[in-house]
Amino acid sequence: MRETDSRQSGPASQQGMRRANLALVLGQIAQGPRSRAEVAAATGLTRAAVSSLAEELLTAGLLSEAGPATPSGKVGRPGTALGLAPDGPGGLGAEIGVQHLAACVVDLRGEVRSWHRMEIRNQGRLPALVFADLAGLLRRAAEESGLRPAGLTLAVPGLVGAAEGMVERAPNLGWAGLPAAAELRLALRACGAAELSALPIEVDNEANLGGLAELWLGGRPGDFVHLSAEAGIGSAIVVGGRLLRGARGFAGELGHVPVRPDGPPCACGARGCLEQYAGEAAVLRAAGLADVRGDWVALLADRAAAGDEAVLAALAGAGAALGIAATGAVNLLDPAELVLGGGYTELAPWLLPAMRAELAARVTVRPWSDDWLTVSGLGRRGPLLGAAVGVVRAIVADPGRFAGRGSDSD
Amino acid sequence: MRETDSRQSGPASQQGMRRANLALVLGQIAQGPRSRAEVAAATGLTRAAVSSLAEELLTAGLLSEAGPATPSGKVGRPGTALGLAPDGPGGLGAEIGVQHLAACVVDLRGEVRSWHRMEIRNQGRLPALVFADLAGLLRRAAEESGLRPAGLTLAVPGLVGAAEGMVERAPNLGWAGLPAAAELRLALRACGAAELSALPIEVDNEANLGGLAELWLGGRPGDFVHLSAEAGIGSAIVVGGRLLRGARGFAGELGHVPVRPDGPPCACGARGCLEQYAGEAAVLRAAGLADVRGDWVALLADRAAAGDEAVLAALAGAGAALGIAATGAVNLLDPAELVLGGGYTELAPWLLPAMRAELAARVTVRPWSDDWLTVSGLGRRGPLLGAAVGVVRAIVADPGRFAGRGSDSD
Repeated sequence: MRETDSRQSGPASQQGMRRANLALVLGQIAQGPRSRAEVAAATGLTRAAVSSLAEELLTAGLLSEAGPATPSGKVGRPGTALGLAPDGPGGLGAEIGVQHLAACVVDLRGEVRSWHRMEIRNQGRLPALVFADLAGLLRRAAEESGLRPAGLTLAVPGLVGAAEGMVERAPNLGWAGLPAAAELRLALRACGAAELSALPIEVDNEANLGGLAELWLGGRPGDFVHLSAEAGIGSAIVVGGRLLRGARGFAGELGHVPVRPDGPPCACGARGCLEQYAGEAAVLRAAGLADVRGDWVALLADRAAAGDEAVLAALAGAGAALGIAATGAVNLLDPAELVLGGGYTELAPWLLPAMRAELAARVTVRPWSDDWLTVSGLGRRGPLLGAAVGVVRAIVADPGRFAGRGSDSD
Repeated sequence: MRETDSRQSGPASQQGMRRANLALVLGQIAQGPRSRAEVAAATGLTRAAVSSLAEELLTAGLLSEAGPATPSGKVGRPGTALGLAPDGPGGLGAEIGVQHLAACVVDLRGEVRSWHRMEIRNQGRLPALVFADLAGLLRRAAEESGLRPAGLTLAVPGLVGAAEGMVERAPNLGWAGLPAAAELRLALRACGAAELSALPIEVDNEANLGGLAELWLGGRPGDFVHLSAEAGIGSAIVVGGRLLRGARGFAGELGHVPVRPDGPPCACGARGCLEQYAGEAAVLRAAGLADVRGDWVALLADRAAAGDEAVLAALAGAGAALGIAATGAVNLLDPAELVLGGGYTELAPWLLPAMRAELAARVTVRPWSDDWLTVSGLGRRGPLLGAAVGVVRAIVADPGRFAGRGSDSD
């Protein structure tokens, strides 16, 4: 007694259902190797259906036979456990920082198979040169991994707009209105990486990708705010397990939240933004290290560990400003956790005391606990991991789309 | 060729499908009266199915025959248009303010059928007395409406926790840990309103309900921040058409976002919170009207309209502080609009210039336009409307649940 029209029983719907079931099966196996019988029990699909779906996923190179399954105590032939294929399609991540470039490949299970980093000052450099260096790094990372990447995501320290692959503004790089995906595709073609230049390329803000890495790999709850520093300051707001991107894609600009409205002028044109207290330039200036180049995070951490008074005071000041800005975020968003990530991870021992003190003094109309301010385990690796892992997660979430695409080109 | 088990074809699933189809039909008709044929065309259900579902909704008192449908130009008997029943179940809203109580009933279409308000200072008053007065108001509102309410939602100026119907903190009322739903139920029983005391009772923060009213009735996009003043300051954050409640239900506490971290001490224990610049007491103090009681919003609006210099300066200061706090919200959340609501609606002419100036000067790393700061058309009626309309929207969203419940008690 189905009351709807019979539209759902046409061939289109059979394809849609098979595609959904491919995702159901692969999603189960992504949680850890298991036998066809276990997959059938967990999904409610018949064993015959699971076998047929698994066959398709094996053929597409997404699954592999991972050895005998854990004995189930039942009579009969022991099942073979299926796992995500370690030699299946990979995820290619790229990162453009103010002082570095990086590329990595993860396999379907999210494990890092290659990782390359290059220290180079990109600020004010001709974008074409930046992309040429990055293309070379990506080519090496892909070759070394031995995997065939299925997609590429680029992390940039800037605002990525609604237009696909377009960096609206990256003040710390000196970029505005740069079609980053198109530039990267050209550079990959120019360096002879034809297969890589044919990949789907996405571009995202590095703070967003760092937050997603924390969600996917950091074992965080589904509601948190991830505060991170590269040259600028960014944040990622995760609500109900999803990244909050905002109406126009610009959410998470923590660095320009006003901390002291009459404070020092900011490069953005406003006054007293968080970046004027806790950004790279501000902290180095406060520590009397204004002319330093290179890895500012490592330098500050070294000097703080050595007891340098000026550096300790500068980091305490940055921690207090972070605490004030974080108070606003907690009052507005009520996250389960605040996570200090990116470069702040390595500086956490000297930032946290002042940050905790501000939060304790200011978050008073609602409960707050020191335990809800935590430190990322991924640190500065977060954005690049998020970029690469996002590619393979998209495959696992919808293997039918990948299998369809793969069979055209294989 | 369905590959799943046959579990979906059991009787439970037929009931589930009928329930979903009841919602589909009622949802169509909620957009405006239409004939059975129009509903069938829009939903993809057969005409026979629509007739059967409509019959059930008519019997449950949710639909009524609304006269001949617009002629479709087709041959044959003209269909009768079905509309939401104006004499169907109603939504009962209640509001406890610092200086007033209010109750209203809306019909299924969301139209107000009765509205009662009582000016009374509730701050520090024994909660049982507050609830006794409110129960009397609710009883009158229900009687006057001629409708049978299907549920009751109470708006309070405080933090409502995860525990059902519990007000964790309402500093402006002097409440902490008050089981508001249970108190209201007792008071309704005590005043002889037995049917009302048997209703499902929900309690929510008044700023949340004001924001929901703006979403449902104000024609807003699905991503906005609603800033409102009662005695305190609250906000509602709407993302993708849904209210962001936060991990523990405390999101939207805009009033305690730090504006000037070294500013005046706030009753919450922190310093320089927005409430110290744009809350009732702060604005009255700045205007030299510290001892005023009664309707502070109307008083300020009258004096500002008359050109009172001190009031104009106080409102400009409040507008500037609102602009600074709103800058933080815009940078974090990237809403499509900021909406000034509640008591701020009537003060908007004098708040907006300073607020716009701060936003223009401070929101610089991403686009911002004066047009994205708007004023609510609902004003101080918002929270009570949101409370009452939420009840009927829940019925329209799942009429099967209501029809099932109604048939037990009728």
